[in-house]
Amino acid sequence: MSHLEETDTENDSEAGNSLSGDTLKILVATDIHLGYKEKDAIRGEDTFVTFEEILQQATKNEVDFILLGGDLFHESKPSPYCIQRCLELLRKYCLSDKPVSIEFLSDQSRNFLSQRVPIVNYEDPNLNIGIPVFSIHGNHDDPTGHKQTSVLDVLASTGLINYFGLWNDLSNVEIRPILLQKGKTKLALYGLSHIKDERLGRLFREKKVHLKKPDGNDWFNMLVLHQNRAARGVKNFIPDSAIPDFMDLVIWGHEHDCKIVPEVTENRVQISQPGSSVATSLASGESLSKNIGLLKVCKQEFVMIPLPLKTVRPFLIDELILENPLSNSYHSEKPSEQAVNQVKEKISQMIEEAKSKYTGPNQAPLPLLRLKVFYYSEQQQFNAVRIGMHFGGRVANPDDIIKLNSFTAKERKKNCNLNLDEDDYEKFVNISEWATSVEDVVMKYFEKDDNRKAMSVLSVKGLTEAVSRFVKHQDDDAFGRIIDKQLKDTVKQLVAMDPEVDKIEEALESIRMQRDQESSNSVQEQDIKMEEVISVSDDERGNNVTEYLLSSDDEVSPISTNTKKAAAKPNARGGRQARGSRGRGGGSTRGKRGKNDSSYGTLDSFCK
Amino acid sequence: MSHLEETDTENDSEAGNSLSGDTLKILVATDIHLGYKEKDAIRGEDTFVTFEEILQQATKNEVDFILLGGDLFHESKPSPYCIQRCLELLRKYCLSDKPVSIEFLSDQSRNFLSQRVPIVNYEDPNLNIGIPVFSIHGNHDDPTGHKQTSVLDVLASTGLINYFGLWNDLSNVEIRPILLQKGKTKLALYGLSHIKDERLGRLFREKKVHLKKPDGNDWFNMLVLHQNRAARGVKNFIPDSAIPDFMDLVIWGHEHDCKIVPEVTENRVQISQPGSSVATSLASGESLSKNIGLLKVCKQEFVMIPLPLKTVRPFLIDELILENPLSNSYHSEKPSEQAVNQVKEKISQMIEEAKSKYTGPNQAPLPLLRLKVFYYSEQQQFNAVRIGMHFGGRVANPDDIIKLNSFTAKERKKNCNLNLDEDDYEKFVNISEWATSVEDVVMKYFEKDDNRKAMSVLSVKGLTEAVSRFVKHQDDDAFGRIIDKQLKDTVKQLVAMDPEVDKIEEALESIRMQRDQESSNSVQEQDIKMEEVISVSDDERGNNVTEYLLSSDDEVSPISTNTKKAAAKPNARGGRQARGSRGRGGGSTRGKRGKNDSSYGTLDSFCK
Repeated sequence: MSHLEETDTENDSEAGNSLSGDTLKILVATDIHLGYKEKDAIRGEDTFVTFEEILQQATKNEVDFILLGGDLFHESKPSPYCIQRCLELLRKYCLSDKPVSIEFLSDQSRNFLSQRVPIVNYEDPNLNIGIPVFSIHGNHDDPTGHKQTSVLDVLASTGLINYFGLWNDLSNVEIRPILLQKGKTKLALYGLSHIKDERLGRLFREKKVHLKKPDGNDWFNMLVLHQNRAARGVKNFIPDSAIPDFMDLVIWGHEHDCKIVPEVTENRVQISQPGSSVATSLASGESLSKNIGLLKVCKQEFVMIPLPLKTVRPFLIDELILENPLSNSYHSEKPSEQAVNQVKEKISQMIEEAKSKYTGPNQAPLPLLRLKVFYYSEQQQFNAVRIGMHFGGRVANPDDIIKLNSFTAKERKKNCNLNLDEDDYEKFVNISEWATSVEDVVMKYFEKDDNRKAMSVLSVKGLTEAVSRFVKHQDDDAFGRIIDKQLKDTVKQLVAMDPEVDKIEEALESIRMQRDQESSNSVQEQDIKMEEVISVSDDERGNNVTEYLLSSDDEVSPISTNTKKAAAKPNARGGRQARGSRGRGGGSTRGKRGKNDSSYGTLDSFCK
Repeated sequence: MSHLEETDTENDSEAGNSLSGDTLKILVATDIHLGYKEKDAIRGEDTFVTFEEILQQATKNEVDFILLGGDLFHESKPSPYCIQRCLELLRKYCLSDKPVSIEFLSDQSRNFLSQRVPIVNYEDPNLNIGIPVFSIHGNHDDPTGHKQTSVLDVLASTGLINYFGLWNDLSNVEIRPILLQKGKTKLALYGLSHIKDERLGRLFREKKVHLKKPDGNDWFNMLVLHQNRAARGVKNFIPDSAIPDFMDLVIWGHEHDCKIVPEVTENRVQISQPGSSVATSLASGESLSKNIGLLKVCKQEFVMIPLPLKTVRPFLIDELILENPLSNSYHSEKPSEQAVNQVKEKISQMIEEAKSKYTGPNQAPLPLLRLKVFYYSEQQQFNAVRIGMHFGGRVANPDDIIKLNSFTAKERKKNCNLNLDEDDYEKFVNISEWATSVEDVVMKYFEKDDNRKAMSVLSVKGLTEAVSRFVKHQDDDAFGRIIDKQLKDTVKQLVAMDPEVDKIEEALESIRMQRDQESSNSVQEQDIKMEEVISVSDDERGNNVTEYLLSSDDEVSPISTNTKKAAAKPNARGGRQARGSRGRGGGSTRGKRGKNDSSYGTLDSFCK
């Protein structure tokens, strides 16, 4: 018989009491982004309000602890106001007389690496901790400054949170889990704070990520990490398949779309992606309903109950394709005026629609709206900001409701090689995302047969390098240096080959082939060559060349050797669901793993 | 019989126990400047080490609380590392099982204005406070950002300090003291966090600073503030005479020279100036021994025992006047080489001398040195940085040991009108100090009879305004605009007066006289005129003209109406001492005030 019952969320506090003393109750949330838009007159308090709701949910559900998956803060050096607000809230909700009934079994000095006094907060006799918080850092609140200190260190030094998952040796990652016990339930909590995706991806592929399993088979193994999960570039994400298959559950931070009900991967790992609690971009993934999770673990079973966040501002996204003025049915003589009228009407409808998303008096009433307007002719254009301002007082973001695009651009996007959907495309053209994906674009272009032979001297690798340097570092000399270097190399090889005049093209082709071969066989050698070329200007600029090369020029294909093409676990319900439903407990998922289920890989098989 | 005995500092912990339960023991410190030079490889930890020593002294002496006089932090937005270090230390020393035996009597919501939950930390049942810390903010850690938050708010929101003395209405200051009681001792602690000196000075003069005395005559009244005390400019400081004479003791922060043994002012107020615990400039005042104070208050008597800080890096300052190459006794043919040899010898001597300041293993051994070298001829100049580097590994500041000056500059400084000593002169030429004193220079110049008539059109006020704007805002148009305006005004008045041709000079003189008259009688009117002239460009620049005019153009003479030419109080020992001696308790001071001593002014007489 199962130790866990799916319980009514609303009455969960009672249900919690009826569960045995063996059930760990964990509130799971991620990407809270405190301080996002804090100077905005309308949205300034949004992140703090929702953080308070999260803490209230933790209190109401009498959880044993709160687990945060990174990006608690939006900035690595938040304003004093932002830190103050966070501390106030933590102090208000996490200190109390409520007893903490989880035993800490592992070596705290290994778990809390960044703290001078590495002690879990609830063991400090001077603090009355009611709800411990455990958090890894994300890419927004990572260590910064000359002493590489995270704002989470600031919180941890007060004893209001426990900051774990920090790892500094980037040539070899070793994760020693926090070991917790409540009754008969033993939790091994593996934390991996954010590491640059390209680098972590490489470390996974090179089997340099070691998860140190505790002795015994009776542990519930849970990993929390904060990385790109969506494939935004060839190497710029961690594929689900990289997760060791002994893991019972993964809490995946960083991705803002709420997919909190665990999905089962090909190698039968369950991944819960709670998503952000605030929309930091006006993309469709952010318009999904926002949830946090109430995770219950009993022995080796778990259930994840989505808890819809009620304070989150409604966010609607829609599009409007204006009528083509060249079509027969088009009658207006003032295309711009007609467009404005259509847009205003559409926005008014959206405002009405937003009202249906009203959850109650704790929710900020003004909605976020994003309307993508596609026009055919320039005559149809209008001042988008002015129209937005027309809705001031009725919308939370009057200055950026409308996004104007030509219809041809829309079509072009659809035909884009990268198979990006509308939103991904938007992210893609955003400079920060673009910068890490530029190599892929070049690469994909030259993968096409028609384009393969377009370059006879410069290699694809050299070109991607140069383009990337131009985009990331505004280094417009990189083209010149790389072409110069490769031209000299080519001439040298040609001279050595000494071909007949009419065989020169052929010789060039063979040199190119050879170089492509090297490029895939001996990445490192190629790196060193490239480094020589680039280092001149990097020294001048003080950039870290090695870092750069390591993180972006690897052409080894993503790990796939250890993935299992197994079906979803039979006893895992709700897997593969796109996202948690909002129903009362209806969207929850249960998982179970038998102690002696030999079909699951061990750490050794993955990353010895 | 006195309630207080001067006790041996070393054994004070025992002595403390023997004192009655009526004695409040307070550790007093100010200007700790956490984070100063935190990136310096040698000095980076200095401020944290000394802060820890201060906290250790508080623990050792079993004080009832710690009182900080501002500038706990060097920057208003300290690095995460700096905040973390501070919190760690506070947590380590201020949390404990030690009972707190002071009763809090006043309205906490009025005392802790900036806190959303205004509660003194030791009354929070969730925190085990052993030593409460009370702090005002200084000019370095004042509120900042769009929500005007001080880093002290960050600390206060954790419950590790109590941040008080904040006042936001700058047209009228009202200080409601924190009222504390221990046994029969009742302390009224008036906190005034830093306010711009010019503004506060004006408010004092206009009797708009209201200190709200509690009912009853049995209070020990103590004020803590953080302002310029030294007269760095005519209006840019708070004169001792501004302090209400009912005050029993003043703790004066901001000034870095340690004058912790209370000095008695003309109106018989005792002022203790603890000084900074770290040298943030290489001026002679910073080379005085650094102390914090152990203040004992019993009923209305007090004793201030200086506690020398032992971790502070030795700092020596000296000067070397090179021989004049034109003098008969000069023999060297290589003046520069001779200079270098002399300088090296002198620095070596200073390094030896520094060893005598060694206090023990907790002190950082490398000294700070400052050698001012004066030369007569340019042939004597040398590369000061290179010589400094010669002492790398033996000195904490090899890159700025030497300050080269021409002897004529030294002489010029001596003859300077402003009667500044060497250090003040240095501060004076520092841009930030200079900027607030520039008006005085101009003013003093034109106070001389010879210079008074030098200008016939431009007023002294106009000129100071223009010079000041040039220095502060790099506004080089200010001269043109002001001359233009005053020229037009003068012509207009001349035309109206319609003088004979040979009387024009006379008429000009009368216009000038009249303007000077207006300038002292009707400052406000003059302000408005000036504002009109300047506002054009200020609007463009986004500067706050009103603020600027309010803070620098007041020609009302410093307050003196309420000062008493009384002698030092007969029962106050050690008053007027330049600084506390390092001896065992030898430098302490006792003060006493009888309940019915009618010779002391009340608040009402000062600032009703």
